[in-house]
Amino acid sequence: MQNISIIMAMKSEAESLIEHLGLSRENHYFRSGIPFQVYIGSLETIQLSLLLSGTDPECHVDNVATVPAALMTYLAIEKFEPDMVLNAGTAGGIAGQGCKIGDVYLSSGKFCFHDRRIPLPGFDQYGMGLYPAYDTSGIAKDLQLKTGTVSTGNSLDLLDKDMEIIRANQAIIKDMEAAAIAWVCRTLSVSMIAIKAITDLIDEDTPTETQFIKNLQQAATNLQIKTIEVIQHLQKH
Amino acid sequence: MQNISIIMAMKSEAESLIEHLGLSRENHYFRSGIPFQVYIGSLETIQLSLLLSGTDPECHVDNVATVPAALMTYLAIEKFEPDMVLNAGTAGGIAGQGCKIGDVYLSSGKFCFHDRRIPLPGFDQYGMGLYPAYDTSGIAKDLQLKTGTVSTGNSLDLLDKDMEIIRANQAIIKDMEAAAIAWVCRTLSVSMIAIKAITDLIDEDTPTETQFIKNLQQAATNLQIKTIEVIQHLQKH
Repeated sequence: MQNISIIMAMKSEAESLIEHLGLSRENHYFRSGIPFQVYIGSLETIQLSLLLSGTDPECHVDNVATVPAALMTYLAIEKFEPDMVLNAGTAGGIAGQGCKIGDVYLSSGKFCFHDRRIPLPGFDQYGMGLYPAYDTSGIAKDLQLKTGTVSTGNSLDLLDKDMEIIRANQAIIKDMEAAAIAWVCRTLSVSMIAIKAITDLIDEDTPTETQFIKNLQQAATNLQIKTIEVIQHLQKH
Repeated sequence: MQNISIIMAMKSEAESLIEHLGLSRENHYFRSGIPFQVYIGSLETIQLSLLLSGTDPECHVDNVATVPAALMTYLAIEKFEPDMVLNAGTAGGIAGQGCKIGDVYLSSGKFCFHDRRIPLPGFDQYGMGLYPAYDTSGIAKDLQLKTGTVSTGNSLDLLDKDMEIIRANQAIIKDMEAAAIAWVCRTLSVSMIAIKAITDLIDEDTPTETQFIKNLQQAATNLQIKTIEVIQHLQKH
C-alpha cells in the first residue's frame, strides 16, 4: 500500500491521530458547501489523506452516520485515488462475544447493515449489505488485534430488532458508518478496512450514550495508537 | 427553473416517466463502477436529467435507500448543475392524516429522518434532519396536489419507534430517500422538491410490502402524470 485515505466521523476521535501523524489541514478541495475537512501528510513512504466529516451548520455537531460517510468516501477516492480506505472510529461491541471497553478491532467477515429491513425478494439481502471484508487476519495476528464482523446503523442506540439482525449476521461490532463506506469502496473497487475502538457494550444494560461519553477518551487514545501501527504494517506488506 | 435533475430510486417507478418525457439514456457520465443510470432530454425550455439508482451487482435489485440516493444527488448536481432537484418516487402515507392509495404529494414543512436516533446533545436534532422544505404551496394549489412533511428511513417496513418519531415530527409521508437527497441539496444550496405517490398506508394493518406490490403500478402511473405537470409548472414560474 502506497496511498491510504482515512475516513473519520468524529473530531474527538480524530484529533489525537491527526496530531500524532503530523497531518496538516488543507482547504478548498471540494465544491463550496461540502463540510468535510481534509488533512494531508505521510508516514514513511505512505501518502496519507484523512477526511473528517465536519460540522453541521445548524446543530454544531459532527456529520455522523451513513449519508455523509458515503459521500466523504466517494470524494476521498475521487481526489486522492487511495489503494486502501481505512475507516477509523469508535463503536459498540458485544460483551458476550468477548468485547471489552477500549479493545481495538479490525473488520473481518462481512460489512452488514442492521437498519435496512426491506422484506421483498432480493431487496432483503440488498438491505443487509453483507459486503465481503478485506482479509485482516495477518495484520491482526502480527499486531495482536481482535477481528469481527461490523454492522452499521444510523442510530447510536439499538432497538430489539436491530440487535436481532446484528446477531443473525454474527456481527460483533456495531457502528454508524462502516457499511456505507464499504458500499462505496466495493462500488469503486478500492480495498477497505475498518478499525474500531470499543466505547460501549451493546448487550449490557447501561444506555449506549452513557457508556459512550464515559469511554470515548480511552477508546480514542487506543484507536490512535493502533491505527498508526496498522498503517505501518500496511506500508511494509 | 431552466435545469431540473430528477432523482429516482426504482426502475419500476421511473420507466413510464422516462418514456413519456422522451428521455434518452446516456453512458459514461461517471467513474467506472458507479451504477447510476443517466437519462437526458428536455420539456419545452427546461433541460432535464434523470438519474436512476441502477442495479446491485449481487442482489439484482435497485440501489434503494439513503446511501446511493445521496451519492446520486451529489453526482447529479456536479454534472448537471440543476436549479432544482426533484425526487420522484413512491412512498407510504398515513391514512389517519387523509392519505389514500394513489394520491400524489409534494413535500412541505421539513424533511426528517425517523431512523437516526442519537440521544446526545445536538446530535439528537442532527439525527432528525429537519431540513426546511421548498415552498410548494403555489404549485400544489394550481395542480390540486396534497402536501406534507416527508420522513425518511432505510427500511421498507416500520418499527413502533419509527412510527413514534414520524408522528412526533408531524410527517405524513414515509419514504426511503428524500431526507438524504435534501441533505445533499441543502449542503450544496440547490432547491429540492419531493413528489411522492402513495403505495401503502403505514397506519393500517396490512404489511407495507404487501400493499406496496399491489399498488405500485397505479402509484407509478399517477406519479408520472403529476411529475410532468410539476415540471411544466416549474418551467412557467
